[in-house]
Amino acid sequence: MELFFILLLLLVVTRTFGELAERLGQPALVGELVAGIVLGALAARYTNALPQIAGLDENVVFDSITDLGMFFIMLFAGVELQPRRLIQYSRGAFAVATCGMVLPMALGVGLGWAFLPASEAFFAQCLFLGTALAITAVPATVRILVDLGRLQSQSGQIIVSAAVFDDILSLILLAWLTAFLNGDPTTPQKMAQIGFSVIAFFAITIAAGIWLFPMAGRFMLRFKQQRELEFSALLAAALAFAVLAELLQLHFIVGAFMAGLFFGRKTIDEPSYDDVRSKTSAMTFGFLAPIFFASVGAHLDFEAVIAVPAFVVCLLVVAFLGKFVGAGAAARGVGLSNYQAAAVGAGMSARGAVELVIADIALEAGLFELPGASPVVEHMFSAIVIMAVLTTLVTPLLLKRIYAHIPP
Amino acid sequence: MELFFILLLLLVVTRTFGELAERLGQPALVGELVAGIVLGALAARYTNALPQIAGLDENVVFDSITDLGMFFIMLFAGVELQPRRLIQYSRGAFAVATCGMVLPMALGVGLGWAFLPASEAFFAQCLFLGTALAITAVPATVRILVDLGRLQSQSGQIIVSAAVFDDILSLILLAWLTAFLNGDPTTPQKMAQIGFSVIAFFAITIAAGIWLFPMAGRFMLRFKQQRELEFSALLAAALAFAVLAELLQLHFIVGAFMAGLFFGRKTIDEPSYDDVRSKTSAMTFGFLAPIFFASVGAHLDFEAVIAVPAFVVCLLVVAFLGKFVGAGAAARGVGLSNYQAAAVGAGMSARGAVELVIADIALEAGLFELPGASPVVEHMFSAIVIMAVLTTLVTPLLLKRIYAHIPP
Repeated sequence: MELFFILLLLLVVTRTFGELAERLGQPALVGELVAGIVLGALAARYTNALPQIAGLDENVVFDSITDLGMFFIMLFAGVELQPRRLIQYSRGAFAVATCGMVLPMALGVGLGWAFLPASEAFFAQCLFLGTALAITAVPATVRILVDLGRLQSQSGQIIVSAAVFDDILSLILLAWLTAFLNGDPTTPQKMAQIGFSVIAFFAITIAAGIWLFPMAGRFMLRFKQQRELEFSALLAAALAFAVLAELLQLHFIVGAFMAGLFFGRKTIDEPSYDDVRSKTSAMTFGFLAPIFFASVGAHLDFEAVIAVPAFVVCLLVVAFLGKFVGAGAAARGVGLSNYQAAAVGAGMSARGAVELVIADIALEAGLFELPGASPVVEHMFSAIVIMAVLTTLVTPLLLKRIYAHIPP
Repeated sequence: MELFFILLLLLVVTRTFGELAERLGQPALVGELVAGIVLGALAARYTNALPQIAGLDENVVFDSITDLGMFFIMLFAGVELQPRRLIQYSRGAFAVATCGMVLPMALGVGLGWAFLPASEAFFAQCLFLGTALAITAVPATVRILVDLGRLQSQSGQIIVSAAVFDDILSLILLAWLTAFLNGDPTTPQKMAQIGFSVIAFFAITIAAGIWLFPMAGRFMLRFKQQRELEFSALLAAALAFAVLAELLQLHFIVGAFMAGLFFGRKTIDEPSYDDVRSKTSAMTFGFLAPIFFASVGAHLDFEAVIAVPAFVVCLLVVAFLGKFVGAGAAARGVGLSNYQAAAVGAGMSARGAVELVIADIALEAGLFELPGASPVVEHMFSAIVIMAVLTTLVTPLLLKRIYAHIPP
């Protein structure tokens, strides 16, 4: 039972490091990421002693467990938030998401221009760097806000809405990049098809959320004879939306989030809502989320820091400043205070898990295996992973300080 | 996201069939098994339309999800029961377990003697049949008792204790059978080693449960700063015991059960206990248990019924009567009433999942692929699966009727 051993080890180590982080006055997520980094480093050094951890990258079963982790984090975020309040902030969130993508994208392409050697893949590599910098990791962002107790605050809701917009925009970017890498021209048809998918997904899930969910709730109140039926019903709705999202070529986390969003106090009754909410929280924060964040941390290796230190430093600076200035300025522009705008800017800069997915796609497309490649190209994957993990690590540390200036 | 689709389909279908079963006055488990049988039959007939279900047998990810299902069912059973009351009934339970294994074992060997053709594997095949009939499926039994609200009753506790004893005895039998199939002589060393494993496992888990659990509980009460720490702690304990069980060559479900058993109202405080219990219940009955039982049902095919009907009928009769008479007579002997003894006899006869594991081991050892095999040998695997599923299906139907005569 390799899986049980892995789950045991990760659960014990992440919760211990999480407790240490809290005692040092930091969010638990920081501890969980560091736990993953430490385990990953130990497994890389002592592969024979920890073969299960060293082999996590190729473990399909563990991959599914971390997918379930992302799924539950987004489901919980949806359950905690209310559609009405999100819509209220959606215009501001859209501005934040757009500016928070355009600036890092431009800076990323510029960074590529400065550091990458001329080759036939030069343009694709610059585009990839831009896309990699434009992304925000919704699951990480949600987790940080939950840790800090700010998910329901104005800035918290703007961050989550903007991060979801971001996720959708980055999926569109990714579709475009993938087509580009495959040598397909990005035809108007292709772009129209992506646009149609996004509209269809939201039309279906919002309609189902508004009309179907309350009907199902009333139905269950009349008929519930089985134990834990409400929890099953929420899971089934989230799984259905996740499958729909994948069918329409969106990421499944958007589906899980939408299902949670439309599950509210009035969907069934207040006690059932509280009950299901607390059970979803247990699965998320007591089991799957720590394991998921440890797996993000475990991906880190410092190879690129040694090989191309200047590039890594520039990448980190650009990654952080791009989001902080882009998203922060937009937030200031839609009327938030300086500290709130800073919170939004910092909150959007976590790259967490989604980044790793994108870096994998580029790796598999052979973007880093070109003849005559420079050290920067060779170590690009490692550099991107360092950027993803460090931005996710810095975000909670920074947000904690910024929120100290904003009354709850 | 094939996994999400499978989980969605199984969750919706099992919970619908479960609701139907309850409306027909039957335990939900019956509905969940039937849901699995129907889906399995549909997938076998329309493989192209349901490739995900048709491919479940080879899906390692789904395999791990069903393992987690077994794990949670046993953990929940442990949480519900109290060590003191189990010990109180343990002498009776040991008698029930022993008689409930010896009689079916003898009948199984006899059945093999009557039906199997002479070959060099004749003796191994008879032994396998005996072992297959001697087994009780603890997870199925627990689920049935929970469905009927009888887990805490005298007969319920005897059934669970006896089923756990049974599980351990059958693991010893299995170790012996495996050694036999591999051509290793069952040396005294080998048997002593198994005995040592069993003793070591219980010595460690009981000592940890009595001394370490309350210490950890007090520790957490003083230090809990993180969300869902109690739920994580229970999971970690159960995972640790499961890993220990596997290390000592016992089945992991025994570990999960022991961890739950020593987690009681006094381990932390009463509200935390109730909270963790309700969260474990949600994961179990709201998510993983229905999926696990559907997967058991999906294994069924009726091939053997057509090919060797007489053998299948005899196997079913022997399977049911062996347990009913063996375990029931022992229960009567230790002082239970007629109805209670009948409940114990019927409750012990579910073969559920453990059987499938054993049949797989025999299949992989090549026990059914011998030269000059008769139709009975050829269809033995299918026949064993039919027996496993049908005894699990009949048990709750029967127990429901028997318990109608016993006041709660």
